[in-house]
Amino acid sequence: MTTLDPADLYERHRDLLDRALTALVSREYWSPFPESPSKSVYGETAARDGEAAFRAHLDKPFEIDVPGARDRVRTERSPYGFDLGVSYPRSTPDALVTAARAALPGWRDVGPHGRAGIAVEILRRLNARSFEIAHAVQHTTGQSFVMAFQAGGTHAQDRALEAVAVAFAESVRLHGPARWEKPQRGGDPLTMDKTFTVVPRGVALMIGCNTFPTWNGYPGLFASLVTGNPVVVKPHPGAVLPLAITVQVAREVLAEAGQDPNVVTLAVEEPGEGIAATLATDPRVKVIDFTGSSEFGNWLEHNARQAVVYTEKSGLNTVVVDSTDDYKGLLRNLAFSLSLYSGQMCTTPQNLLVPAGGIDTDAGHKSVDEFGADLAGAVGKLLGDPARAAGTLGAIVNDGVKSRLDEAPGYGSVLLASQPVEDAANPDATIRTPLILRLAAGDEKVYTSEWFGPISFLITTESTDDGLRIFRETVQRHGALTASVYSTSPEVIDAAREAALSAGVHLSENLTGGVFVNQTAAFSDLHGTGANPAATAAYADSAFVTGRFFVLQSRRHAAPAEAGAAASA
Amino acid sequence: MTTLDPADLYERHRDLLDRALTALVSREYWSPFPESPSKSVYGETAARDGEAAFRAHLDKPFEIDVPGARDRVRTERSPYGFDLGVSYPRSTPDALVTAARAALPGWRDVGPHGRAGIAVEILRRLNARSFEIAHAVQHTTGQSFVMAFQAGGTHAQDRALEAVAVAFAESVRLHGPARWEKPQRGGDPLTMDKTFTVVPRGVALMIGCNTFPTWNGYPGLFASLVTGNPVVVKPHPGAVLPLAITVQVAREVLAEAGQDPNVVTLAVEEPGEGIAATLATDPRVKVIDFTGSSEFGNWLEHNARQAVVYTEKSGLNTVVVDSTDDYKGLLRNLAFSLSLYSGQMCTTPQNLLVPAGGIDTDAGHKSVDEFGADLAGAVGKLLGDPARAAGTLGAIVNDGVKSRLDEAPGYGSVLLASQPVEDAANPDATIRTPLILRLAAGDEKVYTSEWFGPISFLITTESTDDGLRIFRETVQRHGALTASVYSTSPEVIDAAREAALSAGVHLSENLTGGVFVNQTAAFSDLHGTGANPAATAAYADSAFVTGRFFVLQSRRHAAPAEAGAAASA
Repeated sequence: MTTLDPADLYERHRDLLDRALTALVSREYWSPFPESPSKSVYGETAARDGEAAFRAHLDKPFEIDVPGARDRVRTERSPYGFDLGVSYPRSTPDALVTAARAALPGWRDVGPHGRAGIAVEILRRLNARSFEIAHAVQHTTGQSFVMAFQAGGTHAQDRALEAVAVAFAESVRLHGPARWEKPQRGGDPLTMDKTFTVVPRGVALMIGCNTFPTWNGYPGLFASLVTGNPVVVKPHPGAVLPLAITVQVAREVLAEAGQDPNVVTLAVEEPGEGIAATLATDPRVKVIDFTGSSEFGNWLEHNARQAVVYTEKSGLNTVVVDSTDDYKGLLRNLAFSLSLYSGQMCTTPQNLLVPAGGIDTDAGHKSVDEFGADLAGAVGKLLGDPARAAGTLGAIVNDGVKSRLDEAPGYGSVLLASQPVEDAANPDATIRTPLILRLAAGDEKVYTSEWFGPISFLITTESTDDGLRIFRETVQRHGALTASVYSTSPEVIDAAREAALSAGVHLSENLTGGVFVNQTAAFSDLHGTGANPAATAAYADSAFVTGRFFVLQSRRHAAPAEAGAAASA
Repeated sequence: MTTLDPADLYERHRDLLDRALTALVSREYWSPFPESPSKSVYGETAARDGEAAFRAHLDKPFEIDVPGARDRVRTERSPYGFDLGVSYPRSTPDALVTAARAALPGWRDVGPHGRAGIAVEILRRLNARSFEIAHAVQHTTGQSFVMAFQAGGTHAQDRALEAVAVAFAESVRLHGPARWEKPQRGGDPLTMDKTFTVVPRGVALMIGCNTFPTWNGYPGLFASLVTGNPVVVKPHPGAVLPLAITVQVAREVLAEAGQDPNVVTLAVEEPGEGIAATLATDPRVKVIDFTGSSEFGNWLEHNARQAVVYTEKSGLNTVVVDSTDDYKGLLRNLAFSLSLYSGQMCTTPQNLLVPAGGIDTDAGHKSVDEFGADLAGAVGKLLGDPARAAGTLGAIVNDGVKSRLDEAPGYGSVLLASQPVEDAANPDATIRTPLILRLAAGDEKVYTSEWFGPISFLITTESTDDGLRIFRETVQRHGALTASVYSTSPEVIDAAREAALSAGVHLSENLTGGVFVNQTAAFSDLHGTGANPAATAAYADSAFVTGRFFVLQSRRHAAPAEAGAAASA
């Protein structure tokens, strides 16, 4: 095995990190990991090799060392209709945290530069396995292959590098040696040498979700790693493989770099074992990243009191429609946002607020009825061809989404019914088109809950002002990860911006082209805010990383010779 | 009244802010507010005018607007023996928070640059009132005048500017407009304009302490202000005047800059009313800064769940003595640290750990007995002259300290007894010399509590290793704000650094000259860490400010003309 020096890895990846830091400041478009799964980028055999690598995992024990492993679990079934049959070594929460805690001092001593170098090396190797990871994401989340390649592969790697860069920048802001010289009247200056050291908060826990195991998992994982915290990675039992590959790669790089591989470990369980709660309340666990239900996220925030808890939960993603000068673009854009991955994104719009008087458009005034029919039509057109529809919709991830789809029509009048889609290429997949219900502003018992999945509500409000009020109040109370407004009126746009600032949510305005409210770009768009109940953190601002470490200082009188040299320099 | 434009204030103070940011990176010596109360710096009449201004406050209503004020309270008595007789308008917690909340949107809209400009203008005016503030600090805390001028005046202003600079730097890191252009194969790029806005967390509460109302109060106050949070300033009933002057100056500048003066308000109470708890649990209060007892600090951390809580509490400041090549310097330095402001600093050493075998020094081997006698002698020598002693010791701040001084001798064998000092210039002041007790390592029931005041313990340990172990374990469990080691052995210094990193406390090594373990310099030394139970924050690293605000984003397609212009540029 080659031995990699962490300092050399930093030098090797320094240009990439510098480039990332530049993008973070300018917020310009930048993507280090190409999103196109094409041969010209990834090579002639990458697609075939990646699929073969994925197939090779099926029905076999996954090769990974887990400290304290006692037996194996096998928990994954593809939403496309087959059991993965991959088994993973299962340890105990205590053994995992003990191993991670033991790895802490050595990992701390590597310092921010070496840790960033190792982190980027891990990402480079994950990028090389993007096809394999894409298949793993597709068959655990139900995303279509191309989406899995992008959102689960390269975009997740982008978000990870973003977290690495932010964590690196913040942790070197105050790190290393310093010389302090205070002039003294009529005498030599008081001269002190000082050392600043980044110290991690403790053991970190990353709790993955079923739908975006890598995209939502990597930011916390890599932010914790770069700031010196060993990480226990606890995937959702339905989506283990993408994170198991990630942990495997991380441990491989760590070992080659002479580090304790237990800086990153894998925690698996049978569904319902509840090891996340046990891990999260271990007194040695000091940082937690969680993506998933508000119920467990809120539980973590209230019960894992010894830790800093970064959660991304659920909310009421809202669209306020007032007017547009591109009606077709609006319909096309919104239809795609409702359909992409069957609305199973934490960013999919749910509540569409339209004034009772209808909306002005470049295609004439549209009543609420007309708008509803046109939106339903746009979704129908987008999903008209079953094969293309399957590529947009992916598959339904689990039974929870299916039951909500069955239950929802009872709560309003159906504007667009959810239909099964038969995809010849995936005959066993459960694929469904979006459901849109008509509701009134008074139906708040229905629309102030999150209906995770392809379920949206067209809600009639008294006026646009009333819609903005409902938007502000419901998001302040229940949270949201995205919000969007359509209006040709500068006054309405201003009012929507004010409402969004006040509700604490990011705002997309008049999206009619190839940018969608449910997608964000690393290095430019923030994802989430801590400013409403849907999340306590954003990918990736400074606050996402500064809670993960401390800076400790030591100081001493400068040695007289050195002090003299410095004074005369 | 002149109207000041916040943008102009930013331009006026921009050089000073830039200079502060440079010092924060280099950690070099820099002090913008001169610590010398001399005529050459502050002018011929500054001292006289400042004292007159202080005297003019006595026995009068303090002139300040407080929203919802209903009556007045008068709560301060100088430790130098007289009632201040200053009365302050008293409002209700609800009225204060309501006024602060109403001021939030306007203050948010000023933006980070204007807020930083206003904050520095406030500091410039506070600096001009340093003599008045020094008298106010002296006669509420018991600090000697020179210390009050420095620690309560200019050093507090330095720490405030440090907080302004850190808060400014972090809040402009991601603020303002950005252009994002994603290339599209065979077409125009996707072009988006984005806006990033700093949004405050909510109403902030700053709870001041009795001993360092300004030095410990300013960092949180100014960090909250610059990040957009209106601040309710709640002084300790025994030390209102220094913060009342501060609030008065802040409101004056805010009004002149066209802002709602209720961005900063004053909350006073009779002792025991408990308004801090009421304010701290108001759901609109989202940021809390507190300095004081661990008991109330821990209460805040557990009960003010809606807020981010920055606390600085109490701990076991520890000195490990192993060996020295400057025995006289060690004794002089330590004696001064124990005596300064009668040990009433949260940074004063309490636990002095000495190996049973004694210590090697340049003046020969010293047994524990000899070291104890020499340290007692050094304190005696430092405080031999009553007038000079009073200048070092100041006065005992309150009855709590007096009772501890009376109680402590029962817990160990007295190495140096605490003596009253008669200061002719201040015949009514309560002045006491430090008490040093001998304890054994097994007396942990005594030395693992904080004995706030001039009370220290010389504790015999089995060996230096044993002392380092006790240091690490007691600080991990009970916290500390400072730690110090004396050794000529590089191995012991290394072990002490490792113990300090592991205990989560800053370390001073071999201080024998004019730098003392209980003093830190703004822009260079951190004060406190979040890494042990004594505090949740440090003055002032990024983590001290990033929890005070969110960054919210809006985005839209770039207007075609602009997009074209940018593309061809």
